[in-house]
Amino acid sequence: MSLIVQKFGGSSVANAERVNNVARIVTDTYKKGNKVVVVVSAQGDTTDELIEKQMEINPNASKRERDMLLAAGEQISIALLAMAIEKIGCPVVSLLGWQAGVRTTSSHTNARIKFIDCERLKRELDHNRIVIVAGFQGITRYGDVTTLGRGGSDTSAVALACGLHADLCQIYTDVEGVYTADPRKIKDARKLDEISYDEMLELATLGAQVLHNRSVELAKKYNLELEVLSSLTSAPGTIVKEAAKVESMLISGIAKDTDIARISVIGVPDEPGLAFKMFSKLAASDVNIDIILQSVGRDGTKDIAFTVSKDKLADTKKVIENFMPSLKAQKVIFDEDVAKVSIVGAGMESHSGFASKMFEALYNADINIQMISTSEIKISVLIKASDADRAVAALHRGFFD
Amino acid sequence: MSLIVQKFGGSSVANAERVNNVARIVTDTYKKGNKVVVVVSAQGDTTDELIEKQMEINPNASKRERDMLLAAGEQISIALLAMAIEKIGCPVVSLLGWQAGVRTTSSHTNARIKFIDCERLKRELDHNRIVIVAGFQGITRYGDVTTLGRGGSDTSAVALACGLHADLCQIYTDVEGVYTADPRKIKDARKLDEISYDEMLELATLGAQVLHNRSVELAKKYNLELEVLSSLTSAPGTIVKEAAKVESMLISGIAKDTDIARISVIGVPDEPGLAFKMFSKLAASDVNIDIILQSVGRDGTKDIAFTVSKDKLADTKKVIENFMPSLKAQKVIFDEDVAKVSIVGAGMESHSGFASKMFEALYNADINIQMISTSEIKISVLIKASDADRAVAALHRGFFD
Repeated sequence: MSLIVQKFGGSSVANAERVNNVARIVTDTYKKGNKVVVVVSAQGDTTDELIEKQMEINPNASKRERDMLLAAGEQISIALLAMAIEKIGCPVVSLLGWQAGVRTTSSHTNARIKFIDCERLKRELDHNRIVIVAGFQGITRYGDVTTLGRGGSDTSAVALACGLHADLCQIYTDVEGVYTADPRKIKDARKLDEISYDEMLELATLGAQVLHNRSVELAKKYNLELEVLSSLTSAPGTIVKEAAKVESMLISGIAKDTDIARISVIGVPDEPGLAFKMFSKLAASDVNIDIILQSVGRDGTKDIAFTVSKDKLADTKKVIENFMPSLKAQKVIFDEDVAKVSIVGAGMESHSGFASKMFEALYNADINIQMISTSEIKISVLIKASDADRAVAALHRGFFD
Repeated sequence: MSLIVQKFGGSSVANAERVNNVARIVTDTYKKGNKVVVVVSAQGDTTDELIEKQMEINPNASKRERDMLLAAGEQISIALLAMAIEKIGCPVVSLLGWQAGVRTTSSHTNARIKFIDCERLKRELDHNRIVIVAGFQGITRYGDVTTLGRGGSDTSAVALACGLHADLCQIYTDVEGVYTADPRKIKDARKLDEISYDEMLELATLGAQVLHNRSVELAKKYNLELEVLSSLTSAPGTIVKEAAKVESMLISGIAKDTDIARISVIGVPDEPGLAFKMFSKLAASDVNIDIILQSVGRDGTKDIAFTVSKDKLADTKKVIENFMPSLKAQKVIFDEDVAKVSIVGAGMESHSGFASKMFEALYNADINIQMISTSEIKISVLIKASDADRAVAALHRGFFD
């Protein structure tokens, strides 16, 4: 008997038919003699509908109240899934984030899980019940409801699996696993049987949209085996684990991220500490910086360019505008028409020539590179958003054909 | 400085415009130097939409999961109201039932408030914040979300007001106060300035739909002054308190209740205890019986007729069908086409002739009376549902013209 945590995203529970489908997967796992904890996101459009209601009333609502509002979304989906499981006839109980003991920081709309108080979860499992937990949400030490920000339900699932010492954490999505590129865009994209945490981490960070990086980091830390698979087919998915089978190919995937904006701060006086102060103010506002590029400008000034996720652009603008007087920059340019395309592969550490092959493929496709960032196992380029799909296709041809 | 609890029903917060209107009423009260706790129901159609989602998946879902689902409704409305108040610029915090310390029994979908743990509420009020509380919901000692059943938000508001020793509890509705009859139906209906708890209690019990009886009972017990008033006009409402001003008229109102069904159990053997057993089984299923009539039948049998609210009819049928073998009744008739019409007034205790005047008015209007029930301050009759509006009009003419 294994303890398995299964996570289903919003599209997997978008309507009654899909909820029933998920109930079938969950109860099949349960009937095989496993203990099952299920983490669910809000139904398909619920979050958008709730945000629409908010915008109509107060676009600048506090983050605390935005969390209160959005957390209702998963409350609806856990209750509906529990009802569908009741119909099949298996014992089940739904739990909100706070009931499942998901304790987080107080950083509303972007909270981090501090620990899981597993007492109630264990009690429900001891009673042989399937436990449905609301993903994406938790509670602070002060008893306030928080949400975890993008990809939060993945993190909920992995954190619960780690807290409960689960044997496996299955992340159900609308694709069959991790691919060498987005299979909806690249028809030759190949599904991987296995991938290492580090490779998955780079893909997640790079907007491959399969798994959120925080969840992969956590799984790596606790050496928890993840499986990414589809809720719509019964095909085996991709296993994410420490010692992944070395695939014959040298790069494991190509990722695209269009949820990104570039900020260029032009003509900053070359005084020590100015950039540091700006970035620490951004960090204080919970803005995560991605690629940073600093270049020497003219007349003793320098230019600083960096990228943030689009949903942080408003916060970023606010911080920069407040900081402008001390920054003494000549101008600031905000550009949302950008995309990041990356190649990822553990093979890069020991082999050379990846960068030049990548740049050549992009050059042949007539795509202009704006910024470059590299790590041991990935190379990312910033390009125009409209070039992104063509870039992924060109790179897939270059590396996998 | 007073502590005022204000309650707004679902229609008062049905859309963004109405939410803003409620925010204005609340902040006006706050700006006059009062401490304000606000209790809100789910937005207009939210509850119906959630029930529709449930019915599509599992019409026989457990009561626990139905509570989990429905409680999301108030979560949405409290967050939106808090956001509207933030926009006006007053400090505010929204609290779910469990955060506000509303502890209930475990009787899901029809829980009763056991006590209010006011610690967090008091802390928020000490911080000078307007506190928005989700009505209709609470939490059991086991940490499960419950709902309070019909009229639950009124009860939440009164219970919070009692727990906090509030000076006044204002119940905002879509009418301007308590009327001698439904003002939407009877154009000569008069608004009362004051009414006693007992009179209000009879009106509430009788389906006047202004205040739920549990909330009035609670207010009476703690001698809490209630005001029933409209969220759409600024007119003064009706005060409900112990020593109400004696109005010149002898009856204070006429009430109609069409949310009622009659069950007739025909030909029960005249054995002791059979009726008692049936009613105790109904009580165990949380079915409240209203009028009971027992009559001697033929051949040593008797007939028992009683009424329940329509939403309890399914539960009632189930209990009766299970109990049929032991009941040995000849047949059972379920009739939903009934209405209860009542006259209420403290004056009845000391004056006679009300019953004959009532029956005369109904006779003149050619309305047949099926059952009669009386108390010290009210007389109720059961009639055909289609006669109800005509009956109220006839009684209003008879008593108030």
